[in-house]
Amino acid sequence: MEVAEVFLQLAAILTSARILAEAGRYFGIPTVISEMSAGIILGPSLLGWLEITELIQILAEIGIILLLFEVGLETDVGKLLRVGTRAVVVAVGGFVAPFVMGYLLCHYVFDLDPMVSLFIGGTLTATSIGVTVRVLQDVKRQGSYEGQVVLGAAVLDDVMGILLLAFLYDFAVSGEIKLANLLNVSIFVGLFFIIAPILGKLVSYLLHHFHRLSETPGLLPSIIVSLVLIFGALAHTVGAPQLLGGFAAGLALSRRFFLPFGLSLATDPQFSKQLDREMRPIVQLFTPVFFVAVGLSLDLKQIDWGSAFIWAFSISVAVAAIAGKIAGGYLLVKHHWLYRAAIGMAMVPRGEVGLVFAQLGLSSGVLNSEVYAGTVIVIVYTTLFSPFWIKIFYRLYGEQMNKELDGPDPPAK
Amino acid sequence: MEVAEVFLQLAAILTSARILAEAGRYFGIPTVISEMSAGIILGPSLLGWLEITELIQILAEIGIILLLFEVGLETDVGKLLRVGTRAVVVAVGGFVAPFVMGYLLCHYVFDLDPMVSLFIGGTLTATSIGVTVRVLQDVKRQGSYEGQVVLGAAVLDDVMGILLLAFLYDFAVSGEIKLANLLNVSIFVGLFFIIAPILGKLVSYLLHHFHRLSETPGLLPSIIVSLVLIFGALAHTVGAPQLLGGFAAGLALSRRFFLPFGLSLATDPQFSKQLDREMRPIVQLFTPVFFVAVGLSLDLKQIDWGSAFIWAFSISVAVAAIAGKIAGGYLLVKHHWLYRAAIGMAMVPRGEVGLVFAQLGLSSGVLNSEVYAGTVIVIVYTTLFSPFWIKIFYRLYGEQMNKELDGPDPPAK
Repeated sequence: MEVAEVFLQLAAILTSARILAEAGRYFGIPTVISEMSAGIILGPSLLGWLEITELIQILAEIGIILLLFEVGLETDVGKLLRVGTRAVVVAVGGFVAPFVMGYLLCHYVFDLDPMVSLFIGGTLTATSIGVTVRVLQDVKRQGSYEGQVVLGAAVLDDVMGILLLAFLYDFAVSGEIKLANLLNVSIFVGLFFIIAPILGKLVSYLLHHFHRLSETPGLLPSIIVSLVLIFGALAHTVGAPQLLGGFAAGLALSRRFFLPFGLSLATDPQFSKQLDREMRPIVQLFTPVFFVAVGLSLDLKQIDWGSAFIWAFSISVAVAAIAGKIAGGYLLVKHHWLYRAAIGMAMVPRGEVGLVFAQLGLSSGVLNSEVYAGTVIVIVYTTLFSPFWIKIFYRLYGEQMNKELDGPDPPAK
Repeated sequence: MEVAEVFLQLAAILTSARILAEAGRYFGIPTVISEMSAGIILGPSLLGWLEITELIQILAEIGIILLLFEVGLETDVGKLLRVGTRAVVVAVGGFVAPFVMGYLLCHYVFDLDPMVSLFIGGTLTATSIGVTVRVLQDVKRQGSYEGQVVLGAAVLDDVMGILLLAFLYDFAVSGEIKLANLLNVSIFVGLFFIIAPILGKLVSYLLHHFHRLSETPGLLPSIIVSLVLIFGALAHTVGAPQLLGGFAAGLALSRRFFLPFGLSLATDPQFSKQLDREMRPIVQLFTPVFFVAVGLSLDLKQIDWGSAFIWAFSISVAVAAIAGKIAGGYLLVKHHWLYRAAIGMAMVPRGEVGLVFAQLGLSSGVLNSEVYAGTVIVIVYTTLFSPFWIKIFYRLYGEQMNKELDGPDPPAK
């Protein structure tokens, strides 16, 4: 009975995500929202048919690192480095602004504890790479200039968010500031991002070599998925989010990644094409599980919708969360406002990292259940609705950005 | 830590299976043996690094039903029906002969209880569709005449094995024969095999229709996998093995399946091709997990290799197990001996159904641990080594069978 039941759960996740996605497309709703809604509908918030099991959790994690792998695969490292300083500006701006605004708002307006206020500020810093990337895919702007800036900034944000979380959590639990820990994690993450793509490139070279020799079909799916899983576990071991391991693996196998010092291991275009063709269905199979699982992990029923505090708190914190991220985009003062707005808006979704932050705040006793509920509403709001605004934005201005402003180099003011 | 550890486990399964498969190919070892060996090496039998977890179990089950799905997809129903009576002969012969021989041997030579002897006889009846199909794939004889006979017979054997198991188990536990139960299950299984392909064909028709309309990529992987999972669960619900659900789903979507009464829902060849291209990497990713899991589920350390009984028992039962299945093939009296031998040999692997049988015998108290160990050795032997003999057989005679004997119709004597 057990296995058959699990089969039906998985089929329910895949089918509902797809049906809502198709129906949503018809009404112009971004796919990522449809998939999260599938989770909200099937999960404790509405029908209560499904809840997050360990299996669903793991398949979801595999889904998100595979998505990041595909993003890495399609990333032009040269382009990413060219937008590097701008991504840093957006990341740091969109990290500091919501953190400070969240802290000030909670501490001075809602009169919360400094520690509580710090935690809520921290929750507002992270950008959901998964949701952001998916939305950019949905509106077909992933390879665009602003897509590259956002991707770079989101990766940085994720790393900074994790560092801040480790720091605040240590502080909340032990009451002392451990700078050494913070430094360790930073060094590891930095090393990982230097070494992982080089390692990956070597593996890809070996893989390409054996691929020509192998007579047994199916080499690529199992070895590439293994590589992505190992990189995910490696990233986790050094204290970075797992999905960054998937991103690094993708970068390493991307057509446009070259080692320094002219050590460009030339990638056979036919090999790249086959790799892409064989991995795509696997990525498409697993990715929706992640977004459905995000929906499943929410329990909108538990929120006391009648409380006045909840409404006042969540609306004002949401404004800070959104304004803070858009401020990050607006720091690119030399850009046309359309790009500043697009970049800022794309950074708004909080998603999974924000939820992890809030969850840790609750479990460590820093946040009480009311403040936790308010914070979760903010995360849900930014995650569920910003894809919507982005889509509308691109429908209004996408044409203009394509025609008049797009070029190989950063757009003029 | 949890998730990262699971990632590494999965990567270990996929990578070791692939490395051993590639190395094995070089020495002429069938892939399926290499993959099971990977499980034996990583599992409790040797290194003890991995054991079967719920997650691995479920991924393995998905792997086997996806393999059967692919087999169904490539099955020519017309051909299968044309070999129908011959498949029935092989199935029934290869079911009755080992059952009777096993029973007689255990009861009269080894002086075991009638009930114990019946259970061991029952364990010898099942044919491992998974291993058999995989071996035929490995030697590229899946679409051949004998491949079709073996496939049909293996499916029938699996159904009959499950019926016998339900029957013997009921009898062992309650002490009475419940013919009504047996009849119920038979009717359900029969209905399932009539209704499932028709249902599947209708779904495939809808799918094809929506596929043309859909703008979101990734429709096929998620919906097809859902369909396979649902059919697997359905098969389980009516009392049939899950993997037969996968087979039925594949049959329904196969290019060559037509509804009766001229209701042939014409299948667009391009759609079939795309379906095949997108599903293949997914099947290739999951399938090895099953065979590694079979290796993981064995604990060769637990067997007392010094016991004389174990050797005498397992060798003579193995002879009965092999002779019984080959006898089934030899019932096709009008065929050339090469076909009779090939078909008989392909039916030898017992694999998972045999293990389930033995396990139930042990847990219900019918088999003691010594007899259980002996039975497991027989299953391991037939599963691990017959792919080897089959491969050698085809290396010796495959050419001859291809050139002189193969034709659209059953081969002459």
